[in-house]
Amino acid sequence: MNSPLKFLLFFLFNYLSIASSNDQYNPLDPLTPSELTQTRDIVKGFINSTKNVTFHYVGLDEPDKQVVKSWLSSRNNMQTPPRKAFAIIRHDGKTHELVVDLATSSVISNNIYTGHGYPTLNFEEQELANQLATTYPPLVASMAKRGLKIEEVVCLTFTVGWFGEEKSNRVIKVQCYYLDGTVNFYMRPIEGITVTVDLDKMKVVGFRDRAIVPVPKAEGTEYIESKQVNPFQSNLKEKLVQSSEPSFTLDGNTVRWGNWQFHLKFDMRAGSVVSLASIYDPEEGGYRSVLYRGYVSEMFVPYMDLTEEWYYRVFFDSGEYGSGLCTGSLIPERDCPAGAVYMDGHLVGQDGTPRTIPKVFCLFERNAGDILWRHTEIGIPGKLYTEVRPETSLVARTVLTLSNYDYVIDYEFKKAGTIKVTAGLTGMIEVRAAEYTHKDQIKEEVYGRLVAEKTLGANHDHFLNYYLDLDIDGDANSFVKTKMQTKRVVGNQSPRKSYWIATSETVKTESNARIRLGAGDSELSFVNPNKKTKLGNEVGYRLIPGNVVGPLLTDDDYPQLRGAFSKYNVWVTPYNKSEKYAGGLYVDQSRGEDTLAVWSRRNRSIENRDIVLWYTLGFHHVPHQEDWPIMPTLTGGFELRPADFFEYNPVLYAQSTSEVE
Amino acid sequence: MNSPLKFLLFFLFNYLSIASSNDQYNPLDPLTPSELTQTRDIVKGFINSTKNVTFHYVGLDEPDKQVVKSWLSSRNNMQTPPRKAFAIIRHDGKTHELVVDLATSSVISNNIYTGHGYPTLNFEEQELANQLATTYPPLVASMAKRGLKIEEVVCLTFTVGWFGEEKSNRVIKVQCYYLDGTVNFYMRPIEGITVTVDLDKMKVVGFRDRAIVPVPKAEGTEYIESKQVNPFQSNLKEKLVQSSEPSFTLDGNTVRWGNWQFHLKFDMRAGSVVSLASIYDPEEGGYRSVLYRGYVSEMFVPYMDLTEEWYYRVFFDSGEYGSGLCTGSLIPERDCPAGAVYMDGHLVGQDGTPRTIPKVFCLFERNAGDILWRHTEIGIPGKLYTEVRPETSLVARTVLTLSNYDYVIDYEFKKAGTIKVTAGLTGMIEVRAAEYTHKDQIKEEVYGRLVAEKTLGANHDHFLNYYLDLDIDGDANSFVKTKMQTKRVVGNQSPRKSYWIATSETVKTESNARIRLGAGDSELSFVNPNKKTKLGNEVGYRLIPGNVVGPLLTDDDYPQLRGAFSKYNVWVTPYNKSEKYAGGLYVDQSRGEDTLAVWSRRNRSIENRDIVLWYTLGFHHVPHQEDWPIMPTLTGGFELRPADFFEYNPVLYAQSTSEVE
Repeated sequence: MNSPLKFLLFFLFNYLSIASSNDQYNPLDPLTPSELTQTRDIVKGFINSTKNVTFHYVGLDEPDKQVVKSWLSSRNNMQTPPRKAFAIIRHDGKTHELVVDLATSSVISNNIYTGHGYPTLNFEEQELANQLATTYPPLVASMAKRGLKIEEVVCLTFTVGWFGEEKSNRVIKVQCYYLDGTVNFYMRPIEGITVTVDLDKMKVVGFRDRAIVPVPKAEGTEYIESKQVNPFQSNLKEKLVQSSEPSFTLDGNTVRWGNWQFHLKFDMRAGSVVSLASIYDPEEGGYRSVLYRGYVSEMFVPYMDLTEEWYYRVFFDSGEYGSGLCTGSLIPERDCPAGAVYMDGHLVGQDGTPRTIPKVFCLFERNAGDILWRHTEIGIPGKLYTEVRPETSLVARTVLTLSNYDYVIDYEFKKAGTIKVTAGLTGMIEVRAAEYTHKDQIKEEVYGRLVAEKTLGANHDHFLNYYLDLDIDGDANSFVKTKMQTKRVVGNQSPRKSYWIATSETVKTESNARIRLGAGDSELSFVNPNKKTKLGNEVGYRLIPGNVVGPLLTDDDYPQLRGAFSKYNVWVTPYNKSEKYAGGLYVDQSRGEDTLAVWSRRNRSIENRDIVLWYTLGFHHVPHQEDWPIMPTLTGGFELRPADFFEYNPVLYAQSTSEVE
Repeated sequence: MNSPLKFLLFFLFNYLSIASSNDQYNPLDPLTPSELTQTRDIVKGFINSTKNVTFHYVGLDEPDKQVVKSWLSSRNNMQTPPRKAFAIIRHDGKTHELVVDLATSSVISNNIYTGHGYPTLNFEEQELANQLATTYPPLVASMAKRGLKIEEVVCLTFTVGWFGEEKSNRVIKVQCYYLDGTVNFYMRPIEGITVTVDLDKMKVVGFRDRAIVPVPKAEGTEYIESKQVNPFQSNLKEKLVQSSEPSFTLDGNTVRWGNWQFHLKFDMRAGSVVSLASIYDPEEGGYRSVLYRGYVSEMFVPYMDLTEEWYYRVFFDSGEYGSGLCTGSLIPERDCPAGAVYMDGHLVGQDGTPRTIPKVFCLFERNAGDILWRHTEIGIPGKLYTEVRPETSLVARTVLTLSNYDYVIDYEFKKAGTIKVTAGLTGMIEVRAAEYTHKDQIKEEVYGRLVAEKTLGANHDHFLNYYLDLDIDGDANSFVKTKMQTKRVVGNQSPRKSYWIATSETVKTESNARIRLGAGDSELSFVNPNKKTKLGNEVGYRLIPGNVVGPLLTDDDYPQLRGAFSKYNVWVTPYNKSEKYAGGLYVDQSRGEDTLAVWSRRNRSIENRDIVLWYTLGFHHVPHQEDWPIMPTLTGGFELRPADFFEYNPVLYAQSTSEVE
């Protein structure tokens, strides 16, 4: 059968299957609100204590990968894998890990975690801590001493990190800011005061007022449109309209668009999770797997300011604050273009009760005016051909707001098989108040740059680690480094003196798979060594990095021990269900013991087996005045592009026009 | 006056000025068809010979930069700078450089170039050479010997480069391909035969039939939609519509959009040229210059195959074949989205007669669903704010087709002040025919990879050098390297052990401005040391590289001597009107004597003066099966982003909605 015909049949089949399908269920589907409620009730019944139980994570306890894969291949012929929930709670000063069987309404296991580190903070305890601080009499007095109105003071909780202490309590530090004329309190830090709150006891356990620094002015910091005196007209008339009916379908959590299908779910810890991404191959007449699972596994944001109130600002946003918990509702026609389709997400509050985040995802088709492929042919005498296929892609977006910073997390699926992953950084930089009104007044190291009057933007990094469990046409994969090497011409082999050759090497173990990227003279790819094209090439995908950044902290520094995944851009490990987060499961006050860098030290074999790519996307940020008072988006990312995955260009037969034109 | 008010006044002024303006003239405007005709006639009259005169370049001889700048600042009060043309012709075996005064219809200067290298090939001589080859009896016999139909043979001209020869003639080599069942002849090379043609004598001067290799099959190579048996339906329904009236204006060659204005022109050699890009600053109440001039100054594409018919394939596409000459007409709603605005370009044929390329440029507003800036604020008790400003940008596009490869050249202007420069690579890879049908049969070095049956995709590089005459708020600029350096904590300064600081250094001379980029631990910026923000920061722009690639050929190799600009990603030189092309003015058979690498060796001062950034964007290409028979677009690029250029975020006051919504 020729491939265009196969493709037609595929779409026919696909259409019928969507039209007749009522299997909205997938074993990876996130817990529903009623399952979350059920989990809460089972856990509370099990603990059965007069003491407070606080929930820090509830999510699906996923069936084993092989069970999911069997289910997918057999579908209705196989019994549905049982639904189980995984919960992390605090009770009586201890962290419990509970697995709950929802069919039997019973707790299957209850493990008390005794290692270092604490679970993700929940919103309620942070709010309580802030309230404690703002009503704490010494703090009230400190504000009065500075002539600040206490009702205009807003406080934020800061994780305290770990700096070699032997013992630790579950504490956070509270730092305060000033509103009084602006919503943008981040630009008005109140320096010199630290309130320490014990979260288990929920009381103030430390207070220090060290120094008075004038609060930077409110003028010019407001970004809320309705509060601006006279926002200017942009003279842009451009308006884009998508057809009312999107050309993708949502079948439960499964998205189908063009030749792609994938499962999209919201998780309270990880946020946006892409699973089971596979692409239809008309030559093979079926879907072929690419990515079993992808999500941001950790975010490491160390600031470079050694001041007493600043040195511990080395945030692990995902583990400490929760990427899912901090994901917000998207604003239609602002966060996503007109015509986008939205999905809700569910999580639980401190008491285990479900809460819905409306519009936590958007899905939209991007038509940015790019070109899928083209050629103009003038080489044939008397003829002129120009063939162009415009590019359209599908974007799945979430936006995380981690206090000051907003992260736009996009997974973009392209017709030619590429998955493009991007992170956009916007929101507010963290600033420190200082006396300076001019650069020339600065004679000491201030750990940043003057971005406004009396306002220092602190130098910092962002490292996002992406967990990418690639299953390139099956789960037994290998990691291949193709090195481009300069060769000298020998003798009179050629009038040239040099050329380069590409030599491929399969990486055997984890230690050789740790790579710091630089000026690219190698190609990194993930292949299935058991599946070859007709020409004998191993089917694969290659990694195309964007702008590359490496770490600058020393290996022995405490933040770097915890965020050691930032040392390399690329890590490859054998798949292990328990290795989910590059910075570990319990990151608040962690000591780096349960992290990617430690797991990888075992130097396991990664050849021809189920392997995981961990990609670290980094940014060094030296702030500039344009970043004040709110920062224009800065974007970074990488691509996974098919490399001998297909027998030929998979969009060769794409039509130049879309159906509805 | 507060800035929103200033901005309102600006738009009012702008509107009036556009509405009442009839000064379509700008001293940088390209030569009109009638000026090109006039130039032809003047040159032909001046040479006044029975011998053939061939034109290889005609373009505006630009007024000196200071004259242009004076004219711009005074406009109608100053006399229009005289219009002059610069022409490169061949006559009687010599290369002439002529400057023509169009007002007086006279030749001001006639310089006979006696250095190495020849001017850009014109289409007509390449066509003639191909015709000579296809009718050359030994070639006809060679085709018959292979059982190939001569009427299905198509030939292409290949520049011969320079490999240490003492003497040279103006020759090219002709290689042939086979149609017979496909338009995509590039996938059907006829190996082993070389025809050498002397272009001045226009006769065959060499012929060699060295080896017979079967021609790869036509099946599966066709990309012309109307010739495909059954192109599949894409099931994408998405359609985007731009408002019928674009929100930019074209005033002659001057484009105004949002806060940007720039001059866009087509040049026969350089292709797309952006000049006088400046951005409106409401704080200053006027436009501030950013980029005096930007264009692709050279493209260097060395192949890594040492075979007799391949070793010399080290193309300098811009200088040898002409970026402008090879720019094609854009196809509406394919090459550029609906609603795009098109501009024509003019150049001359071999006989000096003007020819118009319709729709050589397109301008369109890109709304890719990106976010200009955003923030969600949940930190203020009882309040929730979400503010989002969607991103829109303006793209100026040309597409170059250099035989097999198509390059999509975009200059994208963003509201927040960023200029994003991208090159998309598509079209056909160069392949060599070989006997192999399976990878395992390959036992020797084949300089590439098997991409289809009997088809080797050759390893190669693409280096695009961009000339960027930055005039950051004036023409006296400096180049500043800000290095991020790890510091160890001393004593009990902090519980931490390390941090990094950013140390800026102004680069004094050219030698220290040659930079090979890698894992980014420095920020490169261009500042005006004479203009400072109120806070005392030098106003500047910074360079944000994308994926970075370096050269792999040895420094002493002939192609690398000619393309030495590829050795570094960044070069900075003092502005010099004569230094326009990184590979020199006469590139065909050049010896690298008149190139960026040579000019830069003088190690001139680059501090606080008019300086030029030369940025090399590179790609290493190891072909894969997906690249056959036509390659999905691969994109690379870089950004220039304001860094303390503005007092604060220049889009802080952007409205969340556009006017017409």
